[in-house]
Amino acid sequence: RQIAILPGDYIGPEIMGAGLKILAAAAKITGFDYETTTYPFGGSAIDATGEPLPASTLAGAQAADAILLAAIGGPKWDNAPQRPEQGLLAIRKALHLFANIRPTQVNPALVERSPLKTEIARDTDFVIVRELTSGIYFGEPRFLHDDEALDTMRYQRSEIERIIKAGFELAMQRRKHVTIVDKANVLATSKLWRKIANEIAPQYPAVTMDFEYVDAAAMKIVTHPTSFDVIVTENLFGDILSDEAATVTGSLGTIPSESRGVSGPSLYEPIHGSAPDIAGKGIADPLSMIHSITLMLRNSFQETATADLIEQAATATLHAGIMTPDLGGTATTDSMTDAIITEIQ
Amino acid sequence: RQIAILPGDYIGPEIMGAGLKILAAAAKITGFDYETTTYPFGGSAIDATGEPLPASTLAGAQAADAILLAAIGGPKWDNAPQRPEQGLLAIRKALHLFANIRPTQVNPALVERSPLKTEIARDTDFVIVRELTSGIYFGEPRFLHDDEALDTMRYQRSEIERIIKAGFELAMQRRKHVTIVDKANVLATSKLWRKIANEIAPQYPAVTMDFEYVDAAAMKIVTHPTSFDVIVTENLFGDILSDEAATVTGSLGTIPSESRGVSGPSLYEPIHGSAPDIAGKGIADPLSMIHSITLMLRNSFQETATADLIEQAATATLHAGIMTPDLGGTATTDSMTDAIITEIQ
Ligand SMILES: CC(C)[C@H](C(=O)O)[C@@H](O)C(=O)O
Ligand SMILES: CC(C)[C@H](C(=O)O)[C@@H](O)C(=O)O
Repeated sequence: RQIAILPGDYIGPEIMGAGLKILAAAAKITGFDYETTTYPFGGSAIDATGEPLPASTLAGAQAADAILLAAIGGPKWDNAPQRPEQGLLAIRKALHLFANIRPTQVNPALVERSPLKTEIARDTDFVIVRELTSGIYFGEPRFLHDDEALDTMRYQRSEIERIIKAGFELAMQRRKHVTIVDKANVLATSKLWRKIANEIAPQYPAVTMDFEYVDAAAMKIVTHPTSFDVIVTENLFGDILSDEAATVTGSLGTIPSESRGVSGPSLYEPIHGSAPDIAGKGIADPLSMIHSITLMLRNSFQETATADLIEQAATATLHAGIMTPDLGGTATTDSMTDAIITEIQ
Repeated sequence: RQIAILPGDYIGPEIMGAGLKILAAAAKITGFDYETTTYPFGGSAIDATGEPLPASTLAGAQAADAILLAAIGGPKWDNAPQRPEQGLLAIRKALHLFANIRPTQVNPALVERSPLKTEIARDTDFVIVRELTSGIYFGEPRFLHDDEALDTMRYQRSEIERIIKAGFELAMQRRKHVTIVDKANVLATSKLWRKIANEIAPQYPAVTMDFEYVDAAAMKIVTHPTSFDVIVTENLFGDILSDEAATVTGSLGTIPSESRGVSGPSLYEPIHGSAPDIAGKGIADPLSMIHSITLMLRNSFQETATADLIEQAATATLHAGIMTPDLGGTATTDSMTDAIITEIQ
């Protein structure tokens, strides 16, 4: 198993290093066999090669069985001719990573860190399935003139069909409830989403489907987060709602996501950014990277034993009160990593 | 002073009736002189005339000094050839109501109703200035075919300039802090917003301006709502964020908004919908309508005395524990209205 490693910028390399040390320790025990190759990506790739997604990085990622990305971007490249984020959009498009799967699960041990009242946040467990390679992120035409600018939200039927099916498939493994989030009272693209969802739903008679306008969904995520199971939505709405949803957990520094393609490798990454403010201080939370790795082990390699071993060790470490400052602890990235490795061994 | 009254659908006429009774009682005491004319609008206008915004309603609204709208829409018109919401979009466009001003203020007496932890919600006091007549709501081209659909987010420089100036002007009367919310790492329109904001900011040297991506803003509204003063943003982002922000107050049923034009009348309305589930039960919260009326008195008629009288009476009534079920009370719309009128007298 070939894993492409994209450490990225600022805290990216710090948490990637921690995650890979833990993976190595666990794999040694379970006998999970893998190889890694590291590639420049994002801001550091701009510095090294002038481009956020060098051709060699894309080729390496394409040839791998899975891709691990830490985090990219930062103020350093705000005025660069190319921006790190363009690399992210480019790799999504090039690898056809059309489905971004973002779990929002409140960890009972961390529920009091949620900005929501405990009784509202408790038991929250839903997944946002965000369309990732179309919509207003990629639609043409687009232009920026001095007196006018334009973006295009465009969706093909086939793009909508595959993401809605991915949502229903996921719901079949969960509580069988799909919520399609759109703005069908205003947008033509949303009307097409609704039409196609209504066509697909009968193929999954066990699944309950409902529709929610994006503004209403933005409310409900705060007021009734437990009312969702699987949310399926278009690219821009998914961007906004999945970040909003992540705050409900109170532990942004612990959440992974998967971006899944039609075929080919999936990309796993923390949902948070590169956190320039804490970079170099050695206090970044490694849990989001660790969970990205266990998600990869389960979904790309069916390597349950190694994933379980890592997760149990991470949970035990948390229960022992060893955690980084974002979770209220005093551990460093290194001391937490070492504690998890000791637990694994 | 001519006020155009658009009661709308479901609970709309119930809360409009309550609000107008209270206005009449207060005006009698302060001597505020006004006339009202009622027009069909939304679903009830579709039923009566086939159109959500009949020409006579538009003409009456246009000729008035201010417009009061309660709430429109509902499942009844889901499959109607015209939808109530089209009336809303049409009146915004026809009257050039380009600035939607949405206050998010946590009432200390209601802070424990916020879904957020009290220490996070407390002291929240910001305003979202949402662009209301352009962007993806109105951009052309748009089409809906069976295999493809398209919407256009388009902004003219002049449209961006006037809304950003409105935001800075408002900030000058407040804590002098403007946050421009956009998605400038992806959208061409957002890049133009950022450019124009940077051009306008020097005209307001007393105001601090910062930028926030819409996904980050969606997080911060939940995690740090007190960090905002005035948020200025485009139409769709404003729709989503202002509804999200409203939940922070824990009292959706009490919040008004103003939609302001270039010249001509402003439109005042509750931020919530027509609540078909509680229509006819007599338990709708009249406070959002009452606050829409006091906002109108202040901003369209400089009628501070009447506005103060109504607000003091409403606050006293709340403090006496008289409130509708949405706020945890047992009052009906009528009994609460009567209590406020008694207080006024
Ligand atoms: C960095 C940015 C372009 C990106 C997005 O908007 O998709 C990010 O916010 C994300 O959610 O992965
Ligand atoms: C009803 C709908 C078209 C409208 C909007 O999206 O503008 C509403 O959500 C609002 O915020 O006033």
